[in-house]
Amino acid sequence: MSDWIAKAQAHRAKRDAAIPSGLLVDLKAAGVPELPEESLPLPYSKTEPHHPEPTTIYPKDNVTGVPSKVLSLEDVAITETPIDKLLSLLATGKLSSVRCTEAFLRRAVLAHQLTNCATDFFPEMALSRAKECDDYLAKNGKPMGLLHGLPVSLKDQFHIKDKEMTMGYLKWIGNIGKQNSVITDVILNAGGVVYVRTSIPQSLMRCETHNHIYGRTVSPFNRSFTPGGSSGGEGALVGMHGSPLGLGTDIGGSVRVPSAFNGLWGMRPSMHRVPYEGAANSFLGQESVSSVIGPLTHSLEGVVTFMRAVLAERPWEMDPILVSMPFNEDAYALKNLQLKAGSAEPAEAFTQGKTQLCFAIEWDDGIIHPHPPITRALREVKEKLIAAGHKVIDWVPYEHLRCYDIIGRIYSADGGEDIKRSCDEGGEPVMYNLMSTGQDQPHLSTFESWQLNQEKSKYRKEYLDYWQATKDKTGTGRPVDGIIAPVSSWASCKHDLNDHVSYTTQWNLLDRPCVVFPVGFVEPEKDPKVALENAYTALPGNVDQIYWDRYDPEEWKGLPINLQVVGKRLQDEELLGLAKVIRDAGATLH
Amino acid sequence: MSDWIAKAQAHRAKRDAAIPSGLLVDLKAAGVPELPEESLPLPYSKTEPHHPEPTTIYPKDNVTGVPSKVLSLEDVAITETPIDKLLSLLATGKLSSVRCTEAFLRRAVLAHQLTNCATDFFPEMALSRAKECDDYLAKNGKPMGLLHGLPVSLKDQFHIKDKEMTMGYLKWIGNIGKQNSVITDVILNAGGVVYVRTSIPQSLMRCETHNHIYGRTVSPFNRSFTPGGSSGGEGALVGMHGSPLGLGTDIGGSVRVPSAFNGLWGMRPSMHRVPYEGAANSFLGQESVSSVIGPLTHSLEGVVTFMRAVLAERPWEMDPILVSMPFNEDAYALKNLQLKAGSAEPAEAFTQGKTQLCFAIEWDDGIIHPHPPITRALREVKEKLIAAGHKVIDWVPYEHLRCYDIIGRIYSADGGEDIKRSCDEGGEPVMYNLMSTGQDQPHLSTFESWQLNQEKSKYRKEYLDYWQATKDKTGTGRPVDGIIAPVSSWASCKHDLNDHVSYTTQWNLLDRPCVVFPVGFVEPEKDPKVALENAYTALPGNVDQIYWDRYDPEEWKGLPINLQVVGKRLQDEELLGLAKVIRDAGATLH
Repeated sequence: MSDWIAKAQAHRAKRDAAIPSGLLVDLKAAGVPELPEESLPLPYSKTEPHHPEPTTIYPKDNVTGVPSKVLSLEDVAITETPIDKLLSLLATGKLSSVRCTEAFLRRAVLAHQLTNCATDFFPEMALSRAKECDDYLAKNGKPMGLLHGLPVSLKDQFHIKDKEMTMGYLKWIGNIGKQNSVITDVILNAGGVVYVRTSIPQSLMRCETHNHIYGRTVSPFNRSFTPGGSSGGEGALVGMHGSPLGLGTDIGGSVRVPSAFNGLWGMRPSMHRVPYEGAANSFLGQESVSSVIGPLTHSLEGVVTFMRAVLAERPWEMDPILVSMPFNEDAYALKNLQLKAGSAEPAEAFTQGKTQLCFAIEWDDGIIHPHPPITRALREVKEKLIAAGHKVIDWVPYEHLRCYDIIGRIYSADGGEDIKRSCDEGGEPVMYNLMSTGQDQPHLSTFESWQLNQEKSKYRKEYLDYWQATKDKTGTGRPVDGIIAPVSSWASCKHDLNDHVSYTTQWNLLDRPCVVFPVGFVEPEKDPKVALENAYTALPGNVDQIYWDRYDPEEWKGLPINLQVVGKRLQDEELLGLAKVIRDAGATLH
Repeated sequence: MSDWIAKAQAHRAKRDAAIPSGLLVDLKAAGVPELPEESLPLPYSKTEPHHPEPTTIYPKDNVTGVPSKVLSLEDVAITETPIDKLLSLLATGKLSSVRCTEAFLRRAVLAHQLTNCATDFFPEMALSRAKECDDYLAKNGKPMGLLHGLPVSLKDQFHIKDKEMTMGYLKWIGNIGKQNSVITDVILNAGGVVYVRTSIPQSLMRCETHNHIYGRTVSPFNRSFTPGGSSGGEGALVGMHGSPLGLGTDIGGSVRVPSAFNGLWGMRPSMHRVPYEGAANSFLGQESVSSVIGPLTHSLEGVVTFMRAVLAERPWEMDPILVSMPFNEDAYALKNLQLKAGSAEPAEAFTQGKTQLCFAIEWDDGIIHPHPPITRALREVKEKLIAAGHKVIDWVPYEHLRCYDIIGRIYSADGGEDIKRSCDEGGEPVMYNLMSTGQDQPHLSTFESWQLNQEKSKYRKEYLDYWQATKDKTGTGRPVDGIIAPVSSWASCKHDLNDHVSYTTQWNLLDRPCVVFPVGFVEPEKDPKVALENAYTALPGNVDQIYWDRYDPEEWKGLPINLQVVGKRLQDEELLGLAKVIRDAGATLH
């Protein structure tokens, strides 16, 4: 066994040993199959990157029902309490943070046993912090902040002072956090309790979750399927109700895909509103398309709470790249949409007591067709919005393939240098050549990367003009308020197959905020397999047809179906207001 | 004569021929020496970039008094009317835009004859547009926008549809604007009248103004001195009152230096508030430190009017990179500084009816010492602010040399490729190797440029923390509100010597907004030459001592002395409020 494999296995064993045995559940006794350990090095297909053989060693079970069987009634009740209610109980002392944290610790460990979602547990630190919160409330009679006493889970990119963190790279074994990442401080300043960190794919540049140290994370809805990624540990953990609020990052879909694949609400905020300063990352210094931090949670309230709590801490005084915009409550209440375009007078619909908005539906992106369940969800949401009095038009995608090409070249502008070096330093091989990590791409010169940035800027300008021009089609006097779109062409898939991400990268290149919301679950009778007419052929390898053919209603049964709503850049609060309109129209699952 | 020289001279002759002869003044009759034409190619010193021989062929005269001798009383009165008053006259029809534009056209042509500041005149287009404004007002009884009828001058980077523009490069002779730059549209939408474009240095990357097509622009205060650059054409034009509002750009001081050298108010806004989309530039696609558009004008009101007018046009609906922040009137009124830090309660000083702020003075940057007149100005401003009830502390620069080094490497990250190609395409030689244009620098790979970005980000973070930590020293409960600093170590200098720009680049790297304001003029009796003790030696070539030794009170006599106030990133309106406090304390010339 080579050195790096031994080192990886030892580190994984160290993680497992750190879990207090009192928190572990005897899965065998509960009749739940344990997860297999894949042997290292993990599967890698260079020749057929778009359709390697799916792994078949994972059980095809849905384990989301396990907690209610093996945890106490009270633990289940606490961990399934809606976040706004939970925060209210914590802020008033009706539930102690210690008790709440114990419940989430137990459920997080169980989620981890079932899905392999965690990289670290911090039971002692968390319970000590929870006691601090309880004591503060008792002494001061008021909560610490908007997240008072709430357990919050962190993706394995966010430093905690004095805690080791690897971000899934061998090279960072032994890497002790010199100080908290700014987001860690912000969460703590707002009263949060950090208790677990969660897994990621090697390099982060993949919408699955799989690395040499911690292995593979699986979907709780079907363990032979991927929970998505790169924030897939969060996806699986929050999907299992092992966390009320998880923090992921998104440079190409890495919050949204795991939110979608685990039936969650999630958000990719606009760049430079949530502090990334002091977090670990791939491609540090790459500023052309930035990764952003966003929440994965069970409700719109969870997303709103996250944004409110972060912005209340004035993070722009801690992270110099941030835009100094406090949470705009008026925008969340859509007050700006209640005015006539370019005027201080109220729009007509509003004077009549209506709140008529215009949404557009992106039925497909012209690159790959969504599976039938996704299309059904789009149809259902459209109907609900119309029933609620809103306008809904079709969104004709504007050259999304061009966008997909540009962002792929931005990701790989260093010819894979960053990832190669990171792997080399730890002695481990590069695992995948999938999501444009640049292993086979040319390393651009600075001048060439400037030319690429110009391609990006030109596309952004054309898209903005295209969006603005819709004001002639909406009947509201405004351009389209929000686009409702797939997050992925499918509702997850078997491991190692989730390689096509144009539905998410589109909005990263344009820096548009997106909120992901759950619509329902795959139901074979409603979502039968049909023939694909006119498959798109622009991508190499017949991807559209191949992805379409993989759909099997029985296999997909019960998998969550999610969509996203896309807003205007930096108008994150308005977008949350739009998401609330969609929720209030009954178009979301909850 | 080589081809490119003939081509450059022909294009310059074309410009001259386009000036209606009725607008030209007979300078000989007025007893004013004409400007010499320097022979091409223009001087270039590779061996001693920091102290080439100054050109000696220019007259050492101050020509700012010429207009009042050769123009009509009414033209002088119109062109010297404060901008707020002028806008009020225009908006109420008491002065027609046509009459106003005629006056500024005449004075701009005169300014050009005296300083060689213009690249294009558009008399027909401007007068036709002015008439459009007048007709609009007559018909609608209200002005077009916040700049109704006002002549506005543009740096030679801003496209006008169907008009040729070169940006001083031979390669762009014959380059016809396909459409307006967004800023041109914004100015027009706000009611402005575009009538002249102004000169720049080759490549824009220099704080002087000198290119092969249009030659050299000189300071109206001493024509053997530079007006600064790269917006030096604007500096000289506005300095001559040939424009009430000029638009420049600033990536390292290019608005601020010519504002300072011509006794003007000027502003470098934060990145991404004023639309750059569709403008010509060097280094297109370089996003690490962006150039920003800012105004050069005669008063604080001119600066505020510019920002209000631009932001009122919702430019973020036209330029996808912009931050969607309307002009924040509360911030301009400093309402946010009237609260206790982190609280909704008013700060103590304000409850007592005072508006106590804390400014810090940057006496020098630890790289190069300011000349005696600059230091005197800092001292005078400090006294005025204290007399007005504010606190003033010393600003200890935080590793400004490190910042100067980083930004120099960012400018030259392409090893000069962009400039080399631009020159090659026009067949002209590269003129200077001065302001880190990278001719002798290595061309970084994309990966290397990412590492450089990390150096920048680390410095930005440290500086933010450093600034925030001053809240323990200010006595206001807040960090320092604004830094008052030199714009340059001197109040201009002889041509070809203005190569040291650390006082301005500092705030570009940190993306801090800056407002430049006039304090007075060099007076030999108040600003005697003294010995420099402890010259800084960190820069090669003994720059500090050499620059200090150049000072000659008699030669500098009458040159404007300006300073800048530096604010918080994206808090441009608060910074304007701080500038108003400085003005209202009597610390500015006007």
